[in-house]
Amino acid sequence: MSAAPSPTAAILVIGNEILSGSTQDANIAYIAKHMSQRGVRVMEVRVVADIPAAIVGALNALRDTYTYVFTTGGIGPTHDDITADCVALAFGAAIDVRDDARAILQAYYDERGVPLNEARLRMARIPDGAKLIDNPVSAAPGFNIGNVFVMAGVPKIMQAMLLHVDTMIEGGAPVLSKTVACNQKEGDVAFELGDIQKKYDGVDIGSYPRDGQKPSLLLILRGTDAPALEAAANDVADLVRKRGEEPAVS
Amino acid sequence: MSAAPSPTAAILVIGNEILSGSTQDANIAYIAKHMSQRGVRVMEVRVVADIPAAIVGALNALRDTYTYVFTTGGIGPTHDDITADCVALAFGAAIDVRDDARAILQAYYDERGVPLNEARLRMARIPDGAKLIDNPVSAAPGFNIGNVFVMAGVPKIMQAMLLHVDTMIEGGAPVLSKTVACNQKEGDVAFELGDIQKKYDGVDIGSYPRDGQKPSLLLILRGTDAPALEAAANDVADLVRKRGEEPAVS
Repeated sequence: MSAAPSPTAAILVIGNEILSGSTQDANIAYIAKHMSQRGVRVMEVRVVADIPAAIVGALNALRDTYTYVFTTGGIGPTHDDITADCVALAFGAAIDVRDDARAILQAYYDERGVPLNEARLRMARIPDGAKLIDNPVSAAPGFNIGNVFVMAGVPKIMQAMLLHVDTMIEGGAPVLSKTVACNQKEGDVAFELGDIQKKYDGVDIGSYPRDGQKPSLLLILRGTDAPALEAAANDVADLVRKRGEEPAVS
Repeated sequence: MSAAPSPTAAILVIGNEILSGSTQDANIAYIAKHMSQRGVRVMEVRVVADIPAAIVGALNALRDTYTYVFTTGGIGPTHDDITADCVALAFGAAIDVRDDARAILQAYYDERGVPLNEARLRMARIPDGAKLIDNPVSAAPGFNIGNVFVMAGVPKIMQAMLLHVDTMIEGGAPVLSKTVACNQKEGDVAFELGDIQKKYDGVDIGSYPRDGQKPSLLLILRGTDAPALEAAANDVADLVRKRGEEPAVS
C-alpha cells in the first residue's frame, strides 16, 4: 500500500515445537515490531520443520524476494539444530567449525569450567564468508551471510542478537502509526473506511475488532509519510464523529 | 521423522497486523495443537500481507503440497478483507454474494436490528462450489473449497469454526508425546540424545532449554507409535539418570 522505498524483510522460524503447538512463538511479533521501527517492512513469515529440504527451500525463496531474511531457531548443540548447515547448503558455501567461533565458545566455557565437547562445538559451525553475530547471553554466535541473518530461537538470546543485527542492516523511513479507537461496529464504518483507504495510497488502514473489549474497534493507520498519515487519521476520526461518537486518537 | 501415514497441513495467516507486530498471533499454536491431536501434522506456516498476489501465491503453493490448508483472517466486512476473493482467484472459481450465506447474515442482523448493508454483504461473498463453515459466534461463515478451509482471524470465532472443520477432515493416528524434564545442560546430553534419535526413526525428539525456569530443559518426544515412544522416552530418561539426576517423565 505504501509508495515509500522501504527495505523489505521476511522472518523464517525453524522449529518443530512451533508447528506442533507445544511452544507459542514469541519472536515473530518482536522482530516485526522492531523492524517496523527501523523502517524495514516485514512482508512474509514462514515457519518450517527441522527438515533440510524445507529449510533450504524456504530460505532460497525468501532471500531472492526480500531485502533481508531473519531466521530464528536451530543453532543449538543438539541433533535437531541443523540451521547453520542448511544455510550453508542454500548458499553453496562450505561449513565447518570456525576458529573465531570456537575461540568465543572456548573462552565462555573455560570461564565456567564446562567442557567444550563435540556437541557444543557444533555451535561453532559457521559457513565460510559469514560474519558472526554477537550473543552476549550465552556466547554461541549467530551469523550473517548474504542478506540472511541467522539467530537463536530462545527469545532472550534472539533479542540480544538483534541489537548487533541492527548495526549490520540499513533501515528506511520509520513506519509511523496512528490509532483511532472507538466502539463502532466494523460493518457500520467499513464502506466509508474503504473510501478513505482509496484516497490515501501511501497509508495502510487496518480495522481490528476486539472481542469483549472496550474500545471494541481499533482502526490502525500506518505509513511513512507523516502529513498523509495525519490527514487520513483525521478523516477516519471524522467518520466516527459523524456517527455520533468521539473516538480516542493516539 | 515419522513413518506414520498422517495427513499433513499448512496454516496460512493473512494479516498485516501480524507482520507489523501490532498483534500477537494466537491462532497458529491453537490450530497446530488441535490438529496434532487429530493426527494431522502441521508442516508449514506462512503469514502474508493483505496483498492479492501474496495470498494467491502462498495458497497455491501450500494446497499443492499438503493434505489440508487452514487460513485465518481477512473475511470481515472491510476493504482489507480480501481472502475470499483471493481464494476464488486461486481456484479459478467464480465468486459473488451467495444466497445461503446471505440468508444466514440476514437472519442474524434482523434479529439484532442491524442493517445488512453493502459492507456486511461482502461477508456473504463465497466462491462457487464451496461448502460453508458455521460461525456460531457472529454468523458470517467461513468456507471450504478443495482442500482449503477459510476461517476468521478473531481467535474466538476461529476456534468455533474449527469445530465444524473437524467434521469435514479426516485425521490420522493421533500424535502422542512424552516429556522428559530435567536440569541438564543441553550441551551435556546432546550427543547421546542424537544417538537415541537415530535409533528411533518414527519418534521426533526435540530439546528445548527454558531460560530462567526449572526444570531448565524439556526433552519432548513425539510420534504415533506408542511402544516406540515409550522405549525412546525410557532411553532419554536413562541418559539423564546416568548423569545423576532423576528426571520428571510425563
